[in-house]
Amino acid sequence: MRKSAYMKVLVPIDGSEYSNKALLQACDFAKKYDARITVLYVVEKLTPLNLLDKKEYLQMARTFGKKVLKNATSTTIKKGVDSKQVMREGNVVNEITKLAKSQNYNMIIVGSKGLGKTAKFFLGSVSNKLANNSPCSILIVK
Amino acid sequence: MRKSAYMKVLVPIDGSEYSNKALLQACDFAKKYDARITVLYVVEKLTPLNLLDKKEYLQMARTFGKKVLKNATSTTIKKGVDSKQVMREGNVVNEITKLAKSQNYNMIIVGSKGLGKTAKFFLGSVSNKLANNSPCSILIVK
Repeated sequence: MRKSAYMKVLVPIDGSEYSNKALLQACDFAKKYDARITVLYVVEKLTPLNLLDKKEYLQMARTFGKKVLKNATSTTIKKGVDSKQVMREGNVVNEITKLAKSQNYNMIIVGSKGLGKTAKFFLGSVSNKLANNSPCSILIVK
Repeated sequence: MRKSAYMKVLVPIDGSEYSNKALLQACDFAKKYDARITVLYVVEKLTPLNLLDKKEYLQMARTFGKKVLKNATSTTIKKGVDSKQVMREGNVVNEITKLAKSQNYNMIIVGSKGLGKTAKFFLGSVSNKLANNSPCSILIVK
């Protein structure tokens, strides 16, 4: 991990209890390591179910993402940690690794489950793929 | 992670540069979190190559493991961190998860590569399996 100036920690969240737990760990970590947190919500660009058309789905997903990021910010404020919020759209793993690489993050802190739509989700898939593809160290919180 | 008393961190090592890096991170982590480190070397019970019979292979592997643990202890002493050493024999992932579970470790800190014999090794396999099977949080160091 980079030692100079301050550490940059990326916390991908999805509003699940697993990502909330990861965020709390990240706050604790940030205080101990004098790190700065970025919370990231990725709107997955899936083909929507029949019930919704694509535009409607994206609108809902973006609104949900904003709410999740707002809640995360409240959490970091309560914990006395500086954070910034980022929203991206695309494939969850790709967007996380792309941001971590381009912005030189030192650490990704992520829940052990979640971060994927139920329909295409199998246990731990995102944290698993991140374990392989992450350009930096990764803490998987259980 | 458990907050009471002190944190227990398990650091599986194999003598590779990746596990050395993970151990240094673990020392840093231990100081910040007031954690205690256990370094673990697992002698893999493989069918040996033709060159060696099983007994000879195990003897070599155990001797190598002792050396790796001794070096790791020197590292933790230099870094001013308490550590204990454990050696196990069997499947690497199984032995790590078994120990983490039975002894209530709070965290596993492991390198992103290594921890597997070259012949049966593909990139990140052990850290990948641990990401799925670990009973506690896991920090994969790059």
